[in-house]
Amino acid sequence: MSESNLAASGDVQPCVGSLRDELAAVRNAMQANAWGAVIFPTGDPHISEYPSQHWCTRAWVSGFTGSAGTLVVLRDCAALWTDGRYYIQATQQLASSGIDLQRAADLDCPKPEAWLCEKLAAGDRVVCDGRQLSAEIAETMRKALTRKEIALEINTDPLAGDLWRQRPPLPSFPAFVHNAEFVGQSVSEKLGRVRECMGEHGASHYLISSVDAVAWLLNIRGNDIPSTPVVLAYVLIAPGAVTCFIDAAKCPPVVDAHLEEAGVVRCGYDAVYGALATLERDSCVLLDPKRTCTWLREAIPETCQVVDADDPVQKLKAVKNSTEVAHLRDATERDCAALAQFLAWFDGEMMGDGVLTERAAAEHLERLRCGHARYLGPSFETIPAFGEHGAVMHYSATLESDIPIERHSFFLLDTGSQYLDGTTDITRTIACGALSAQQKRDFTLVLKAHIAIARAVFVRGTTGPHLDILARGIMAREGLNYRCGTGHGIGYCLCVHEGPHGISNGNNTVPLEPGMLLTNEPGVYREGEYGIRLENTLLVREHATTDSGSFLAFEPVSYCPLDTRPVLGELLTDDEREWLNHYQAEACRRLSPRVDSETQKWLERACSPLGQGEGVRCQVSGGRETAGCRA
Amino acid sequence: MSESNLAASGDVQPCVGSLRDELAAVRNAMQANAWGAVIFPTGDPHISEYPSQHWCTRAWVSGFTGSAGTLVVLRDCAALWTDGRYYIQATQQLASSGIDLQRAADLDCPKPEAWLCEKLAAGDRVVCDGRQLSAEIAETMRKALTRKEIALEINTDPLAGDLWRQRPPLPSFPAFVHNAEFVGQSVSEKLGRVRECMGEHGASHYLISSVDAVAWLLNIRGNDIPSTPVVLAYVLIAPGAVTCFIDAAKCPPVVDAHLEEAGVVRCGYDAVYGALATLERDSCVLLDPKRTCTWLREAIPETCQVVDADDPVQKLKAVKNSTEVAHLRDATERDCAALAQFLAWFDGEMMGDGVLTERAAAEHLERLRCGHARYLGPSFETIPAFGEHGAVMHYSATLESDIPIERHSFFLLDTGSQYLDGTTDITRTIACGALSAQQKRDFTLVLKAHIAIARAVFVRGTTGPHLDILARGIMAREGLNYRCGTGHGIGYCLCVHEGPHGISNGNNTVPLEPGMLLTNEPGVYREGEYGIRLENTLLVREHATTDSGSFLAFEPVSYCPLDTRPVLGELLTDDEREWLNHYQAEACRRLSPRVDSETQKWLERACSPLGQGEGVRCQVSGGRETAGCRA
Repeated sequence: MSESNLAASGDVQPCVGSLRDELAAVRNAMQANAWGAVIFPTGDPHISEYPSQHWCTRAWVSGFTGSAGTLVVLRDCAALWTDGRYYIQATQQLASSGIDLQRAADLDCPKPEAWLCEKLAAGDRVVCDGRQLSAEIAETMRKALTRKEIALEINTDPLAGDLWRQRPPLPSFPAFVHNAEFVGQSVSEKLGRVRECMGEHGASHYLISSVDAVAWLLNIRGNDIPSTPVVLAYVLIAPGAVTCFIDAAKCPPVVDAHLEEAGVVRCGYDAVYGALATLERDSCVLLDPKRTCTWLREAIPETCQVVDADDPVQKLKAVKNSTEVAHLRDATERDCAALAQFLAWFDGEMMGDGVLTERAAAEHLERLRCGHARYLGPSFETIPAFGEHGAVMHYSATLESDIPIERHSFFLLDTGSQYLDGTTDITRTIACGALSAQQKRDFTLVLKAHIAIARAVFVRGTTGPHLDILARGIMAREGLNYRCGTGHGIGYCLCVHEGPHGISNGNNTVPLEPGMLLTNEPGVYREGEYGIRLENTLLVREHATTDSGSFLAFEPVSYCPLDTRPVLGELLTDDEREWLNHYQAEACRRLSPRVDSETQKWLERACSPLGQGEGVRCQVSGGRETAGCRA
Repeated sequence: MSESNLAASGDVQPCVGSLRDELAAVRNAMQANAWGAVIFPTGDPHISEYPSQHWCTRAWVSGFTGSAGTLVVLRDCAALWTDGRYYIQATQQLASSGIDLQRAADLDCPKPEAWLCEKLAAGDRVVCDGRQLSAEIAETMRKALTRKEIALEINTDPLAGDLWRQRPPLPSFPAFVHNAEFVGQSVSEKLGRVRECMGEHGASHYLISSVDAVAWLLNIRGNDIPSTPVVLAYVLIAPGAVTCFIDAAKCPPVVDAHLEEAGVVRCGYDAVYGALATLERDSCVLLDPKRTCTWLREAIPETCQVVDADDPVQKLKAVKNSTEVAHLRDATERDCAALAQFLAWFDGEMMGDGVLTERAAAEHLERLRCGHARYLGPSFETIPAFGEHGAVMHYSATLESDIPIERHSFFLLDTGSQYLDGTTDITRTIACGALSAQQKRDFTLVLKAHIAIARAVFVRGTTGPHLDILARGIMAREGLNYRCGTGHGIGYCLCVHEGPHGISNGNNTVPLEPGMLLTNEPGVYREGEYGIRLENTLLVREHATTDSGSFLAFEPVSYCPLDTRPVLGELLTDDEREWLNHYQAEACRRLSPRVDSETQKWLERACSPLGQGEGVRCQVSGGRETAGCRA
């Protein structure tokens, strides 16, 4: 599943149509309180990428359900900023809402604070729930607004609580211990490494706000964020003491015993504010302003020093240890086997005359993988997108949007699982019936871009943005671009999007290190027509050490057949063809022992090698011929 | 000529041998003043990359003459930090000096301030000439040192003036007006654009320290920095007034009249300190802390506000206007014609039995180009490096180092010119006699890397570091790396290295824009054996605009034949061969009208196309056969 990128271009969507009721209600409150503007960011008090329903205020007010966006409501207009993954979806969902779309990834898009400065006057007041806004963004906004004598007032729940009558409660799922067998490192070992990082910053205290960092550090998991096995909690590390702020109701005795054994004190979830507010004079508190809400940042007394730095846990947990790597390889292979079963079944369905809808396809896949004892659920809502739905990068197949999969165009399936022993994320784009020349060409280009990343060799010190052009450049030569990153980090039984590294045409400065996981997912998105994305998970590994230095490379973690039927063989170089044939053969070899005999036969057909100089081996021509051409 | 990069690896060179006299003299002064350490940076009060001889204190103390380096002297040890371009040279020049080499580009190399913290104790004093240290580095150092209660004392000329008896005086060349015919933009137009940038920062004042920024803004040039036509001067822009701080002796009446016409007041060079020190309360001063010395930064009263920002002039002057582009194309073609004359002559010399040394070759080239009316001199000291000298990235052929060019290995020639209508920088590596299989393979890899950058197509918003892997990745696959950037910006009758953009595996965040110039110079450097570098200057241009966005690409500005004799044709893709043949044909077409008939014949032979599937067209086998094989 794709993450956002930074560089693209386009123009601002004009505001059309009538007003949403929720927007009108917000404006009434603004009127009553003499507020000039209200900001609704995406986020919870842990600045989670996917907050729980309770915190989806922005979606509630605007109707836009994408995972990233900032809504700003003024008395006479409103605008929503989101990135390139959501331009199509936002355009649809904001139609008739009275909210303009701001394409945040475009180079000429104004920042919300610049837009506010333009629209408001000196003396105006802008309010925002300080629990949903990161300390970093709050500071940037305040700096810009102050220059125009506009006040940014940080509040807790300035109005959503009053207006949003059906607001879902905070989640209350129990936490559980992530067993030693899976994690490969004890809490005290992890704490030792974190305390080393604190030492480098000269910090006496360290506030960890990110729920995935808390889960990793304490070797606990939960179910408080959709598709992410984390628990709502904070950790404060102090000299000689570690406190976990978490609801007592979430902690069964086994979790309590685990924390106690690790020397971690348990305290109520809401007590974190008070603990910060009463820190001793001259405490030096390390925190990550990108990952800490401004409300907690501002709780720290002025008599303390605050060190703003990148959360060191992010880097520590990004490099998977050997126990984790062994497990996640197994989990991913298991997951790919379920997907192969699905793909074989899907090809069979396409040969028949029955109607298969997007949702039915996704449900069938879920049935195939949900039986495993270590399966916790999907790692994000499966994207089962036929035809033009494939161009909506994070398409959601709802009851309203669901359509039958026809025997033409592509079926794009982006899916992932949470297992106790790994988090997965994979996309396959499947040819359904006859394809146009452009579709085949686009598919082949995406495949070439995917292979370029997979085959990359790079000197130690290289960052993800250094590699992005290998994929994006192949598309650019054909006048194509995708409005998202090329790949993102993945957690280990944690978030499907994980930092601090990533491959995009942005400015991420984190060098790739052996043991880091990344997705590789270039694509083509033709609005109103179709989308193509080919995604595997890669592991960074040592490649060679020579007089010139130390070199790294990738190896695939996900092995599942790519659909080679749309491939225009004459567009592949020898190296690319060799990579493809080797990958397909490996997928067949690895998955065969894990699937039923029907799927084994399908695997052999689907993974048969593409010959030298061979073009499209057969026409992909719909219906019964589709599978036959592989024989 | 290459610029530094950031990522590489290696280890610290141990200190060997006896002490330099200059180092001992510095230590005596340290003893007398109770200083714990003295820092000798590379730089002048304008933080120029190539300071005039007067400011080469670091080279005087250490004996290391490379263009980049920081020397730190302690009572019992000393170390010099330099980047990957100079590892080989520094190892040689620091042997027996008592100074350790710190390989600054290596990932595990400590920063000077961290090293100082390790070596010194609380209460120690570190001194440095504040005119040679940028405000940014001074702040970083002070922050780190203060944490260990070590003081950084900024001084003007703490000791070099006393000890360095033969110190060269400051240069005193006259300035001249860069005529309207060449510049395409008047001083007042440029000032208007700069004032817009100041407005964006809310600045009332703007201190311009960089000599190239001053020269660009005021359309004047000079001769105060080696190989760079700039004049030592500052500009202070204030509300309603622009002051140029420059020695009166440097300003002939025509320059005075030019400045007056542009509304620029002239003031003495040294008056800049006082002008800053007496700024009115609440002035808001914009300056670039990377390009302003800490001595001037600290002159500004605390009652003023200082806005630290990237010097906006750097970005303005990096994008060449159409007048400049037309001129620099012509100047570069003129320069390439002289180089082609040289290459034809060189091939003839290689066929004879005479002895040709590196210096003699460089002198012949200089004779060929120095006759032009617009020629001002070389844009850097020509690098005429035979055999193992080619592995020294910035090799200097001195009387002592000069060697004959033999009929084996490579002759690497990196050279550039300053013309009134453009600055050039080009490298050709020429096969001399028989080459080994490894030499041919290395040459072909460098060519492939060069072509990969030259052919790049990229979405608008792409930065140089996004493109670097296209070249470096080709080398990395073979276990090779070059310890420098892939390319740098170039000035227009200004510095041969110019920001703010560049291609490296660092973290430069400046997007490439149409009109920017860049070099493209990947290489292979085998210490003790040979070096290969192929360098052209490229211009960023519009490529296409599609539904997916706006795309950019490069076009060569330098057209001069590449030596195709060492090329292993079977390693080239069809696209690469096509690029090469087109480039060679264009070079022949463009240069033929500018060269003599002998060189015309040579051009035709040297630029003949490489056929499909063709390998090395003939053995490069020394002596008379070398040129014959091209027939």
